[in-house]
Amino acid sequence: MIAIERKFDEELYLTSETGRCLYHKYAEHLPIIDYHCHLNPQEIAEDREFEDLGEMWLSGDHYKWRCMRTFGIEERLITGDASYHDKYMAFASILPKLVGNPIYIWCALELKRYFGIDEPLSGKNAEEIYARTKALIREKHMTRRWCMEHSNVKLVSTTEDPVDDLRYHKQIAQSGCSTRVITAFRPDKAMFLTNKDFASYVGRLALAAETPITSFPDLLIALERRLQYFKEVTGTTVSDDGIPFFAWENWTEREVEEIFQKALAGEKLKKKEKNKYQSAFLYHMGKIYARNGFVMQLHIGTYLDANTSRVARIGQSTGFDCCDDATAVISVGKLLNALTEIEELPKTILYPLDGTKIETWAILAAGFCDSGVRGKVQLGAPWWFNDQPYGIKRQFEACANLYPVSLSVGMLTDSRSFISYPRHELYRRVFCNYLGELVEKGEYFSSEENLKEIIEDVCVRNVNDFFAFNVAL
Amino acid sequence: MIAIERKFDEELYLTSETGRCLYHKYAEHLPIIDYHCHLNPQEIAEDREFEDLGEMWLSGDHYKWRCMRTFGIEERLITGDASYHDKYMAFASILPKLVGNPIYIWCALELKRYFGIDEPLSGKNAEEIYARTKALIREKHMTRRWCMEHSNVKLVSTTEDPVDDLRYHKQIAQSGCSTRVITAFRPDKAMFLTNKDFASYVGRLALAAETPITSFPDLLIALERRLQYFKEVTGTTVSDDGIPFFAWENWTEREVEEIFQKALAGEKLKKKEKNKYQSAFLYHMGKIYARNGFVMQLHIGTYLDANTSRVARIGQSTGFDCCDDATAVISVGKLLNALTEIEELPKTILYPLDGTKIETWAILAAGFCDSGVRGKVQLGAPWWFNDQPYGIKRQFEACANLYPVSLSVGMLTDSRSFISYPRHELYRRVFCNYLGELVEKGEYFSSEENLKEIIEDVCVRNVNDFFAFNVAL
Amino acid sequence: MIAIERKFDEELYLTSETGRCLYHKYAEHLPIIDYHCHLNPQEIAEDREFEDLGEMWLSGDHYKWRCMRTFGIEERLITGDASYHDKYMAFASILPKLVGNPIYIWCALELKRYFGIDEPLSGKNAEEIYARTKALIREKHMTRRWCMEHSNVKLVSTTEDPVDDLRYHKQIAQSGCSTRVITAFRPDKAMFLTNKDFASYVGRLALAAETPITSFPDLLIALERRLQYFKEVTGTTVSDDGIPFFAWENWTEREVEEIFQKALAGEKLKKKEKNKYQSAFLYHMGKIYARNGFVMQLHIGTYLDANTSRVARIGQSTGFDCCDDATAVISVGKLLNALTEIEELPKTILYPLDGTKIETWAILAAGFCDSGVRGKVQLGAPWWFNDQPYGIKRQFEACANLYPVSLSVGMLTDSRSFISYPRHELYRRVFCNYLGELVEKGEYFSSEENLKEIIEDVCVRNVNDFFAFNVAL
Repeated sequence: MIAIERKFDEELYLTSETGRCLYHKYAEHLPIIDYHCHLNPQEIAEDREFEDLGEMWLSGDHYKWRCMRTFGIEERLITGDASYHDKYMAFASILPKLVGNPIYIWCALELKRYFGIDEPLSGKNAEEIYARTKALIREKHMTRRWCMEHSNVKLVSTTEDPVDDLRYHKQIAQSGCSTRVITAFRPDKAMFLTNKDFASYVGRLALAAETPITSFPDLLIALERRLQYFKEVTGTTVSDDGIPFFAWENWTEREVEEIFQKALAGEKLKKKEKNKYQSAFLYHMGKIYARNGFVMQLHIGTYLDANTSRVARIGQSTGFDCCDDATAVISVGKLLNALTEIEELPKTILYPLDGTKIETWAILAAGFCDSGVRGKVQLGAPWWFNDQPYGIKRQFEACANLYPVSLSVGMLTDSRSFISYPRHELYRRVFCNYLGELVEKGEYFSSEENLKEIIEDVCVRNVNDFFAFNVAL
Repeated sequence: MIAIERKFDEELYLTSETGRCLYHKYAEHLPIIDYHCHLNPQEIAEDREFEDLGEMWLSGDHYKWRCMRTFGIEERLITGDASYHDKYMAFASILPKLVGNPIYIWCALELKRYFGIDEPLSGKNAEEIYARTKALIREKHMTRRWCMEHSNVKLVSTTEDPVDDLRYHKQIAQSGCSTRVITAFRPDKAMFLTNKDFASYVGRLALAAETPITSFPDLLIALERRLQYFKEVTGTTVSDDGIPFFAWENWTEREVEEIFQKALAGEKLKKKEKNKYQSAFLYHMGKIYARNGFVMQLHIGTYLDANTSRVARIGQSTGFDCCDDATAVISVGKLLNALTEIEELPKTILYPLDGTKIETWAILAAGFCDSGVRGKVQLGAPWWFNDQPYGIKRQFEACANLYPVSLSVGMLTDSRSFISYPRHELYRRVFCNYLGELVEKGEYFSSEENLKEIIEDVCVRNVNDFFAFNVAL
Repeated sequence: MIAIERKFDEELYLTSETGRCLYHKYAEHLPIIDYHCHLNPQEIAEDREFEDLGEMWLSGDHYKWRCMRTFGIEERLITGDASYHDKYMAFASILPKLVGNPIYIWCALELKRYFGIDEPLSGKNAEEIYARTKALIREKHMTRRWCMEHSNVKLVSTTEDPVDDLRYHKQIAQSGCSTRVITAFRPDKAMFLTNKDFASYVGRLALAAETPITSFPDLLIALERRLQYFKEVTGTTVSDDGIPFFAWENWTEREVEEIFQKALAGEKLKKKEKNKYQSAFLYHMGKIYARNGFVMQLHIGTYLDANTSRVARIGQSTGFDCCDDATAVISVGKLLNALTEIEELPKTILYPLDGTKIETWAILAAGFCDSGVRGKVQLGAPWWFNDQPYGIKRQFEACANLYPVSLSVGMLTDSRSFISYPRHELYRRVFCNYLGELVEKGEYFSSEENLKEIIEDVCVRNVNDFFAFNVAL
C-alpha cells in the first residue's frame, strides 16, 4: 500500500531520532543572519505589500524561471507580460512534477511557514490557494520587511556594485527596520576588463569615488574609497568576488599597467593578459580587504550568460547561467599563497560552484588557516546549484572529514526572494540529522552540551563572530 | 548469524515499502523502448538460435571481457579460440568474486528472467547450469528476436555508420519482426579527421551518398543525404555523436576548408586545427539534425583505444576503452550556444561518460531549454561505466536537484547483448525506490496519481514523445 | 530524548547485522600488512618508550597539526617549543568539536585499543587521561615496536630516498624485531628536476650508487643500482612515486638529455621541458620496476608545499600540502600504454589523491589489466585526504562497479604514527558493513564461504601475494 499523507511533514529530513531531538531542542528557534543575498534594497526601503503569491514567487526568482523553461513553457508566462496570476498558474501546474527538486520542497516550506498551508500545491488547487494566500497577504499586510521579521532575520547583507550610492541602505537605516541591512562590496566589473563597457564603468567608478582613474593604482584607490564608504554607511565587513574562470598568472606591475591601458582603450586582450590582470586584481583586492577588516568571499566557477542570445533578449541573471568546471584549485591556491607570503591574507571564504569537486577546495582552505583566527580560510555554504539537501549533506559528509564543520559560518540564501528563509530551516534540519546519525552510528559520543554548542555555532554564532557583526543573539 | 538465502530476491533494490509498491504497481509491466544499443542488425535479421549461455554472454560483451582480464585470465578464454563452453566456465568461476559489480547482478537477473534460475552461479554449479540453460535454449527456441519479444521490447535502435547500406534493417522490416528496429546515424568517422583512414573513409562516404566529396560543404551534403536515407529506410530520428575529447575553437569556413583538405591529403594537423574542424563539424551536424527533425545525442568524454597494443591485437571495442576527464563543460556550452544563436539547436541529449561530474552537465542542459519543447536539452541515461545502481541513483539524487527528473527519456542498454534488457528493470527498480524514499522522508507529498504519471513518463512515454517514435503503448 | 552513551561503541560502523557478523567472524583477528607508511626507521631501530600521549599523537602527525591550525591555535602549541603535555592539552580541547572528522574517531579508537579507554576525551578530562595513559605507557613499556606487535602487524614498509644507506633497516633486521620492516624506493627527487637542489641531489645519488652521473642514462643506472641495493638489504618489492602534477609529453632521448643537462646547470626550464623529462623519467622507472620485480605505486595529484612561507618557516610535510585537481587521466594512461606497448608494464597501483574523480582512475586501471596477473593495474587504498569512512565507502561503492573490489590489495596507513593501525580496523569494519548491506539488499547471494575468502583476500592475502611478501599468515 502506498501511503502518501498529502500533508506537509514537520519531521521533514529528520530521519533519525537523535537528529529530530537536536533540531527541535537547539536549532529550530535560533535567529537568522543572512550574510549573502541579492535582495533589492529599494524594495526593502519602500516596503510594499506583495500583490499576490505570483509576485512573491515569480517576480525575480531565476531558479523557478529556469525550471519552467525545462518544461517548454512559453516565455510570456515566465518573464514576459503575462500577469503574476497567470505565471503562478503555469508554475503551479508543473510543481507536482518537480519530485526530488529543491523548488518543490522550498515551495512547500514557504506555503507552510508564511501561509500555514499544509496540502500539496498542484494545478488542481492552484486557484483556491491563490485566493487564500492573496487574502492572507492583505490580512497580515505582508510586506518585504514583514517576511524578514516573521522569519526572525536579524541581519541581511545585499550585494552592490562599488558605484552604488547606497541611498536605499541609508533610507532603511533611518526607517527603523528591525532587520539590520548591510551590503556586500562586489567589485566584479572592475575585474571583467574584457567587457565592452569596461572603460565606461571605470569612468563611473571615478565619479563615484571622486578621484580620477588613469592607472591601475588609481583604480585600486577608487575601489578602496568606495569600500570604506560601504563600511561607513552600513558597517559592512562583507566583500564578494565572482570568479567565472580563473587561471593564476604571475605578473609585474608594469605589465598590469599596460594591460589596464589596453583595456581602457578597448583593445583586444590575449587570454594570458586577462589572467595576469585578474590575478593582480584579486591580489590587490585581498590586501584592501585585509587592511580594512573585510572578509574576502570568492565565488568560483560561474559560467555566466552561457546562453548569450537569450540573455540578450531576456536579461542577465534570468536563468541562463551555468557552471564552469575548469578553474584549477592551484590557481586560487596561488592567490592565497601570495597574500600569505606578505602576511596580508584576509579572512577568506571559498564558494566553489562545482559541487562535485568540493573536497579539493576544503583541502585548500585548511592549508591556509593560521594562528589567531578560527577558520581563517574556510568553505562557504553549499551555494546556488548546491543549495539543496543533497548538496548540503554532501558538504557535511565529505568536507567534515577535511575541515572541521563546527567552524563553518553556516547557511545563506543567496536569494532574490523575500520568502526564501526556510532554506536556513532546511539546512538546519539536514545538519541536525547529520549529527544525529553520527551519534546513532557511534561515530560521535561526546556530550550533548558539545552538540548544542556546535549547532548554535554553525547556525548563527560563527557567522556573527567571523564577520564581527555583533548582532545580539 | 549470517543469513544468506542463496536465492534471487524479487525485492532487489526495493528497500522502501513505498518503492516496492510503486514498482510492482506501475513500472514492472511497462514495455521497453531501447533507443540506443549496439546490437548487430545482421544477427536480428538472421535470427539464429543461441548455441549456449556462453555465446549469449561472451560472444560480444566487452564488459565481461574486461572484467575477466582484471583476474588475469588468459586471453584465449576471453576473446580467443576457446569454445563458448570453456569461456563460460572461466567466467562462471570468477562470478562469486564480483561482489558489488553490476556484472554480478546483471547475470543474476538474466538467469532469472530468461531461464528461471534462482540460485547463484559459481564454478561449482557452472556445468549443471550450462546444461540446464542449453536445454532451455533448445526447448524454447531462444533466438535473438525471442529475447527481445520475451522482454516486451517494442523498439530498438542500433547504431550504424553513414556508409552502411542498411540491408539488414530492410530485411528485418520485411520479416515481420514484432520489435521495431531502427538505427542511429553515427557520423563519428567523418569527425575523426586525424584517423589514418580518414581520406579513404571520405571516399567510401562519397560512394554511399552518390555525390563527390571534394570540400567540407560536399562532406556535409553527403552526410545529410545519408541521414535522410537512414530516416527513409527505418523512420529514425536518432543521431549519435561520440566525442572523445573536445575543445571548442572558433573557426572560419575558410579555415575549416583548409584543414579538411590537409586531412584528406594525410598531412599532420595541429591540435588547434583538429579542434576547429570538430567544432565546425558538430555545429553543422547540429543544423542538419535540427532541419531533419533528429535528436542530437552527444556522448562526451570517451577515451577510446587507450591500450593501443592490445587494441591492435584484439580489436576495437573489446574492453580497452577508458574515460577522459578533460573536456570542459564550456566547450559543449559554446556548441549549444552557437546553435541557439541561429535558432537551429535540435533537441539534444548529453551523455557525459565521466559520471563524477554529471551535475555540471545537468546544469548546462537546463541553461539551453526553450519554449515549446519539454526537456529540449537534457541529460541522457547513466551510461556505460555509470550503468549500475550507484550511477543511476547518483544521477537521480544529484541531478533531480538541477533538472526535473520527470522529463527524462529514461534508460537504454547501450549493449551488444540480446539479454541485457533487465537493465531497464534494474533502472526502474532504482527509480521507484528513489521516489518511494522521497515519499517516506516527507520530501514528496503530492498524489499517487502524480507518481504514476512520472513513472510512466520516465520509463517509456517521454522517450516515445521526444523522438516522435509513435510506438503504441 | 537524546541518548548519547558517552562510551566507545564496539559496533562502530557496523550498521547491518550481516556486516557485524562478517567483521567479528572473519576480519577482526586478521594480521596487518602495512605496505606503505612514513614511520621513521631510526625510531624503530632505537625502540624508545614513548614519553606520553602527547608524543604519541603530536610529535609528527601533520593531520592533527593542520586541524589545530583551523581552530587558530598558536603554532607554539602545534609544532613549536611547547611541551608535549601542553600540545596534548590544546589538542584535547578541540577534540569534541571534531564531529564528523576522522581524527575524532581515530583518537577514540587509539584510546580504546592501546589504553582501554572508553570515554570521550575532552578538555575536561584531558589531564586525568593524560595521567592514566602516561602510567600505562610506563607500566607496559610501550615502545615503538610494542605498538606494532600489539596491533598484530606482520610487515611494515617505510619510504626512503635512493640515497639512504638503510643503516636503520639493517639494525632492525639484526635486532629480532618481530615485525618485518622493509622500505619503499622513492625516487621523487630525481624526477623533480626544477628543484633548486637538483644538481646537488644528483651528486649525492652518484656517491651513494658509486657511479658517476653525467647523463640521463647514468642517472637511471644509479637509480637501478640503489633499487637493487634496497631489495638486497630489505627484500623489498615496493616502489613509490609521488606525482604532483603530470602532463604526458612525447620526447626523444636526445631532448631528455638536453633537458637533464640544463637542469644540472641550474638553467630555467619551460613547462614543456619539465613534462618531457618527467614522462621519460616515469617511463624508464617503470621499465626498471618491471625488470626487478617491483610494484610501481603512483601517488597522483599532490599539491605539495602550497603554503610556501609557512613551509619555509615550519618545514615540509607539516600540514601545508593540498590536492591538485589538474592531472588528466589520459596523461597517466599514456604512461601505462607506452610501457604496455613494449611489454614492460610492471604491476601498478594508482593512488589518485583527488577522491572526487576516483572512478575515472578505476576505469583506467581496468583498461591495462592483463593475462597472468590478478589485478595487474589497480586502484590503491583511499589515501591521505580520503582515508576515512566516507572516502573508503565511496571507493567501495563507486569503484566495485568498475573494477572487482575483491582483487584489491587493501588498506595501508600512510602514517607517521606508531598507533595508527586502527585505521586498518576502521577499513575492515567499513568493508564488512558494505558487504553486509549488499547481502541484506539482495545484491549478493553467493555463499558465506565466498564472502570469507573475499574478506581475507582484501584484508591481507592479496597484498601478500601481489608484492610477493611471503608473510606467513
